[in-house]
Amino acid sequence: YITSGVVIAKDKEHGRNASIHRLLVLSKNKLAIRLCERDLYRYYKKAEREGKPLEIAIAIGLHPAILFSAAFSYSIDFDELSLASSLMNKPLELVECETVEIEVPKESEIVIEGKILPEVREWEGPFLDITGTFDIKRKQPIIEVTNIMHRRNAIYHALLPAGEEHKLLMGMPQEPRIFEAVQKVTNVKNVCLTKGGCNWLHGVIAIRKISEGDGKNAIIAALAAHPSMKHVIIVDDDIDIFDINKVEYAVATRFQGDKDLVIIKGAKGSSLDPSSGKGNTTTKLGFDATRK
Amino acid sequence: YITSGVVIAKDKEHGRNASIHRLLVLSKNKLAIRLCERDLYRYYKKAEREGKPLEIAIAIGLHPAILFSAAFSYSIDFDELSLASSLMNKPLELVECETVEIEVPKESEIVIEGKILPEVREWEGPFLDITGTFDIKRKQPIIEVTNIMHRRNAIYHALLPAGEEHKLLMGMPQEPRIFEAVQKVTNVKNVCLTKGGCNWLHGVIAIRKISEGDGKNAIIAALAAHPSMKHVIIVDDDIDIFDINKVEYAVATRFQGDKDLVIIKGAKGSSLDPSSGKGNTTTKLGFDATRK
Amino acid sequence: YITSGVVIAKDKEHGRNASIHRLLVLSKNKLAIRLCERDLYRYYKKAEREGKPLEIAIAIGLHPAILFSAAFSYSIDFDELSLASSLMNKPLELVECETVEIEVPKESEIVIEGKILPEVREWEGPFLDITGTFDIKRKQPIIEVTNIMHRRNAIYHALLPAGEEHKLLMGMPQEPRIFEAVQKVTNVKNVCLTKGGCNWLHGVIAIRKISEGDGKNAIIAALAAHPSMKHVIIVDDDIDIFDINKVEYAVATRFQGDKDLVIIKGAKGSSLDPSSGKGNTTTKLGFDATRK
Amino acid sequence: YITSGVVIAKDKEHGRNASIHRLLVLSKNKLAIRLCERDLYRYYKKAEREGKPLEIAIAIGLHPAILFSAAFSYSIDFDELSLASSLMNKPLELVECETVEIEVPKESEIVIEGKILPEVREWEGPFLDITGTFDIKRKQPIIEVTNIMHRRNAIYHALLPAGEEHKLLMGMPQEPRIFEAVQKVTNVKNVCLTKGGCNWLHGVIAIRKISEGDGKNAIIAALAAHPSMKHVIIVDDDIDIFDINKVEYAVATRFQGDKDLVIIKGAKGSSLDPSSGKGNTTTKLGFDATRK
Amino acid sequence: YITSGVVIAKDKEHGRNASIHRLLVLSKNKLAIRLCERDLYRYYKKAEREGKPLEIAIAIGLHPAILFSAAFSYSIDFDELSLASSLMNKPLELVECETVEIEVPKESEIVIEGKILPEVREWEGPFLDITGTFDIKRKQPIIEVTNIMHRRNAIYHALLPAGEEHKLLMGMPQEPRIFEAVQKVTNVKNVCLTKGGCNWLHGVIAIRKISEGDGKNAIIAALAAHPSMKHVIIVDDDIDIFDINKVEYAVATRFQGDKDLVIIKGAKGSSLDPSSGKGNTTTKLGFDATRK
Amino acid sequence: YITSGVVIAKDKEHGRNASIHRLLVLSKNKLAIRLCERDLYRYYKKAEREGKPLEIAIAIGLHPAILFSAAFSYSIDFDELSLASSLMNKPLELVECETVEIEVPKESEIVIEGKILPEVREWEGPFLDITGTFDIKRKQPIIEVTNIMHRRNAIYHALLPAGEEHKLLMGMPQEPRIFEAVQKVTNVKNVCLTKGGCNWLHGVIAIRKISEGDGKNAIIAALAAHPSMKHVIIVDDDIDIFDINKVEYAVATRFQGDKDLVIIKGAKGSSLDPSSGKGNTTTKLGFDATRK
Repeated sequence: YITSGVVIAKDKEHGRNASIHRLLVLSKNKLAIRLCERDLYRYYKKAEREGKPLEIAIAIGLHPAILFSAAFSYSIDFDELSLASSLMNKPLELVECETVEIEVPKESEIVIEGKILPEVREWEGPFLDITGTFDIKRKQPIIEVTNIMHRRNAIYHALLPAGEEHKLLMGMPQEPRIFEAVQKVTNVKNVCLTKGGCNWLHGVIAIRKISEGDGKNAIIAALAAHPSMKHVIIVDDDIDIFDINKVEYAVATRFQGDKDLVIIKGAKGSSLDPSSGKGNTTTKLGFDATRK
Repeated sequence: YITSGVVIAKDKEHGRNASIHRLLVLSKNKLAIRLCERDLYRYYKKAEREGKPLEIAIAIGLHPAILFSAAFSYSIDFDELSLASSLMNKPLELVECETVEIEVPKESEIVIEGKILPEVREWEGPFLDITGTFDIKRKQPIIEVTNIMHRRNAIYHALLPAGEEHKLLMGMPQEPRIFEAVQKVTNVKNVCLTKGGCNWLHGVIAIRKISEGDGKNAIIAALAAHPSMKHVIIVDDDIDIFDINKVEYAVATRFQGDKDLVIIKGAKGSSLDPSSGKGNTTTKLGFDATRK
Repeated sequence: YITSGVVIAKDKEHGRNASIHRLLVLSKNKLAIRLCERDLYRYYKKAEREGKPLEIAIAIGLHPAILFSAAFSYSIDFDELSLASSLMNKPLELVECETVEIEVPKESEIVIEGKILPEVREWEGPFLDITGTFDIKRKQPIIEVTNIMHRRNAIYHALLPAGEEHKLLMGMPQEPRIFEAVQKVTNVKNVCLTKGGCNWLHGVIAIRKISEGDGKNAIIAALAAHPSMKHVIIVDDDIDIFDINKVEYAVATRFQGDKDLVIIKGAKGSSLDPSSGKGNTTTKLGFDATRK
Repeated sequence: YITSGVVIAKDKEHGRNASIHRLLVLSKNKLAIRLCERDLYRYYKKAEREGKPLEIAIAIGLHPAILFSAAFSYSIDFDELSLASSLMNKPLELVECETVEIEVPKESEIVIEGKILPEVREWEGPFLDITGTFDIKRKQPIIEVTNIMHRRNAIYHALLPAGEEHKLLMGMPQEPRIFEAVQKVTNVKNVCLTKGGCNWLHGVIAIRKISEGDGKNAIIAALAAHPSMKHVIIVDDDIDIFDINKVEYAVATRFQGDKDLVIIKGAKGSSLDPSSGKGNTTTKLGFDATRK
Repeated sequence: YITSGVVIAKDKEHGRNASIHRLLVLSKNKLAIRLCERDLYRYYKKAEREGKPLEIAIAIGLHPAILFSAAFSYSIDFDELSLASSLMNKPLELVECETVEIEVPKESEIVIEGKILPEVREWEGPFLDITGTFDIKRKQPIIEVTNIMHRRNAIYHALLPAGEEHKLLMGMPQEPRIFEAVQKVTNVKNVCLTKGGCNWLHGVIAIRKISEGDGKNAIIAALAAHPSMKHVIIVDDDIDIFDINKVEYAVATRFQGDKDLVIIKGAKGSSLDPSSGKGNTTTKLGFDATRK
Repeated sequence: YITSGVVIAKDKEHGRNASIHRLLVLSKNKLAIRLCERDLYRYYKKAEREGKPLEIAIAIGLHPAILFSAAFSYSIDFDELSLASSLMNKPLELVECETVEIEVPKESEIVIEGKILPEVREWEGPFLDITGTFDIKRKQPIIEVTNIMHRRNAIYHALLPAGEEHKLLMGMPQEPRIFEAVQKVTNVKNVCLTKGGCNWLHGVIAIRKISEGDGKNAIIAALAAHPSMKHVIIVDDDIDIFDINKVEYAVATRFQGDKDLVIIKGAKGSSLDPSSGKGNTTTKLGFDATRK
């Protein structure tokens, strides 16, 4: 498995896209690529409808800012590489590929060029996912590799599946999204997807309440913003949400389970939660641990 | 009470704002204005902090597209009058006021010019609101009228409080907001704030489910997008959500109250719901009436 | 299928009975008849125990008052045709049949004479029922036709399955039954089985409360009186229960889902509700939308 | 207090009525009478509207069949004394009173004649009721005594408040009413208001289930039929409902508290339940202890 | 089946053990013994690990104090026979067996000597248990009989399965255990496992409350102390818990089902409850029927 | 306040007792002592009933093993100082006091001798307790100081209220108690009162499940054993319960809020929980985060 490859592609209508996908090495020049139903998937489906392969380049060994940007999904027209430039406070230097019409970061240690073939699918998986349990096998599209470039003594960067780097890259981009959503219903101070929740399933949110009931509305907003979230805890802004003991202290001393708990049964949950039910449905809980 | 006055103001930073406010006639040249904590309120607070009055113009007797645009609240930098131009497919003709530096639609039947005074508040209310019950009295800012212009035989347009026109202008702008939010979690076909729910408290949403549990997630997304919503019903997209009998049919034949009902107690609700509790807290219900 | 045939029969002990049954045409002189466990079923079982066929006559093309009366089930000794007389304010003219000892309304457009055979059952169904979904197939008794009379240019009256006429004839007779039951626990003003609930699954009841808690007791009484009812809404008597928007308004403004909702899981529901579970068990909900 | 007096009255429209009321002796010839809103109350209100007193006779020392009949309330036109005749299998012998136009049972040990005065009310209470706690004091109508007849060495029959005789006379007439109601939704075998529930608050009902969910529907029907009932247990008909240990055995071995329990909060309960809340609202529970 | 045999065994570490087990007669000299995972089972497993049979003696026809003591399980080091001595206020006279090194009460009518064989299991059951339903069949260890002694005209004592003697011997030893546990959280007056609950599944506990909430804590403590308990009722100490009608009276008049009921789903229940679910999981209920 | 004083006393019947109490310095020779209803309280009440003061000695500046032992409460006859000897693996050296007949550890830095006076109470408090909020003021007994001994340059040991040392001394002795209780219902591996729960309100318990439902029974047993516990989480024994992130991981991936959550309303909680209700009632929650 290649786990840290940033896949770059282009679309006439939506521009450039950069995103991270796990890539299963099937043979010397064939990779299976896991495509969730997000931007690159849409690029690929569009190409497939036209009966064409989708050209891509896979860059490995990059600055964390680029990895983080590629992990971010905002809107289909959004160019993730420009976010990387902003984060690094300087323009990102790009170079042309050799067999595909795509630019890749100049600093890449390794670049794999190729195309995702239309109308072809093969088994991809099993893969150890962020919850430390195996994701199911799925029929996924295939990349035919057309060229490989690398630096001398190239450093191969591997993301340890279910390791902290893996979790951070998945979870961190959700936090501003949740922040923005909760901000619409009350004053939010900060958002944290916790380590214990695999940076994905559990969130803690500090708010400064404006009116009674704000804790509950913050729960609703957070669950709406990050649909994979299973449990969320709302605390006052005097609580340091990055110290899980402080968060637990708020639950111990400001929360009453009959009034301050929201239970939503049978919602769509994360496929990464091994305890979820049929069709990955789950029960979501929200804890309003603000002072009343 | 003046109920259909579009209040236009300007701010150096955020540009022009147009919004509808109920205006209580206190004396020949004094109006009380009900300011919710939205754009115009911020313009006013900014002026007040600088110790200055805020110049405004009140236009009465306008094309419905202008009224609708003024009812819309998107972001503080958004110029509602440009939305009116779009809706009418032609540029909106504006004319200068006489005593304030503000432009108003040329077609206005009546224009009242004036300024909202800093540091002054008087009792405003009671007012019959969309639920047909009286809103409470509040201390609100005061407009000092500096000039009145009107056409010959000007038509005075009054919005009947709690009438359908009133409800539509309040509710309609929420529908695209809810649409957008639910679209993020599943395929939404349409959104309707129902007449029986005063175009404000009740929503019906048609979706085309992608996976099990989508109905629940649509409930969460909708409640997050429109925090005043109290009850929301999710139906499949074969149901005509604008025919309440069809919606009721879906609840009768596709919904089971033990599994398909979401109950969220003690959330912040609408101040317009006379059944809400302390601090306008309310119990929100979501009905997933999609086929399972 | 013959859908509007009023089946008339006689029993020495219980007198005349008139009731509507769907009749599946199996061959030139054979009909399958759907018999629920009500009066005619008991007449038939009694005859079958004696090893005899039960004589019947089927009248088609009748005054709505006769149809309505036949749809009514009160007690086994009750003569539905006398109710028709009362409703029309004049005695109903009857004529003798030719091959069976039964009288039928003189005004009938078509009369089918025959007998329900003992110890014979054949498959009946599938039939599109009032919820617009198909009822299951069942083994049902068989009518052997002995004679058919009709007017010249007889009008054949068909009830459209799942149409409004069908629903009205089923639901309307339940309303006085519910009225009477709720009257025993509080002051009831009116009862309506709603169109959206297929005139069968949903009820709305207006009451004038005498004491706190009456809304809940009205819910219990209504569910007891009409065991097929799935959801029932109780409103104050200032609400027009025949305007579903007004009823929805009461739910929006006078109801709180934590206190005013009754949930009864695993009750016997209607076989017509496609969402019901094993053995047609269902979750019943009662909404107390009266002012508190 | 006179606790076993059968009060007999007449009304031109509705005929004779006999009912038991507690009577507080206020002075030598004045009694306060507790009138619930039932038949005698309506006779009295009708007389009061006409400005007239209502003549009554109070018979004490009677055959249990007469007491039981007087405890029964069916419809306003129902003559309770004729029920007594049926129960005793012989016509009840009656004699004329001396100062009022009313007949009383010849066998009465004591007869008090008098009239309930219009527009007069005095405090009645406190009285120890069937739950062994005191009923509240109320303003009640007054009887002016006009004559007293008694046998030589008359036996004065007193009902011990909250004693078993008191409870039986209150509870027993409810049982056939509950029987009839449950019979409408399933096959009922027997009904018992238990001693532990003061023959008033708790019921046990044996049914022979026809279909799944019948236990729940029996709960609903029973609660509707006897609105003072707080807890009801449904068992199969192999359980002897008059042996509370057998009923408890059914709850121990055929009942699961998550699926077989019905909880109805905030219903109107009995004023005799000291644990009931504001306005005598109560939480009703139904236990479906039938085999599943 | 031998149902009243007290099985006596010895272990070097833990000393003597006496306990009652049902014994299925398989052949002239072979018995199957039902061993729950308690003391004797551990003795046996220890012997089995060493590859040795466990010597035992079965005494039949004993003083009730010995039976009761044998029914008691306290700790593995506890000698049940010494409890019998205490209860009878005199030392229990013992005699040596002939083929095993075990002493048995001198008064025994019949003594069966033998050894439980290692590594052998045969089917045991079905057996009618205290709830009057059949326990499942299980593979259980086997006793090889080595000697039988009996008095002349020995009396054979049989415990009737599911009879009262059977229930008492099972349930009575639990009562002091529950008493002790509840005493730790509040003042307990008495504990009763009721007859209707088969002296096993239902408990009633009288307490003298010290503070609000004690009733709930008593429920928790009781369920913890006797894990087979399914339903428990807490009453004040003015209620005679040995009169089930008085207990029911407390539930009728001091209990409200919304606040005073504890529901614990999916707990491990008794294998003797035929209504329990997969893996004998059950829903436990606690009723706090103390005055509030 | 003196916060680390070990108070030593003697009783003829129950022997020596050592326990930690907070001591409020009222004047030069007067201390108020907070006596919960435990051993020393009983010694004092016994003395008070006899009209005598209770002699005590307060030792400050001790080995942690002595502090820990004094924090432990097992049974009234248990000598805490002998536990200290065991923990330190050598006999604890004691010396006689001068004005009271009590021995204190020889190593004490400071010893205060005195007597608790009968029939005297003064205000004690407010005191910052382990949850970081103030405990209420109470009328408490008074110590009259009769002598003070100290080492040269004595070290005064202060426990910081609500600090970790304070919490550990309170919570740690509860853990073996909970361990023992849960062991009775399933296999327990370890018990931890968490830091975030102030070592008092929250517990985590690792078990090795024997049968389905064990997680729920472990919840019940734990809540019974430590009645101040508010929330408890049960995990499998592969989870390190001393790493709160691992515990959270178990909740994220092995727990479903509809089936695995126990909610007990209105129980007696800890007076130290500022969110508790009237009479310190609280809602207790149990999370069964074991694999199912």
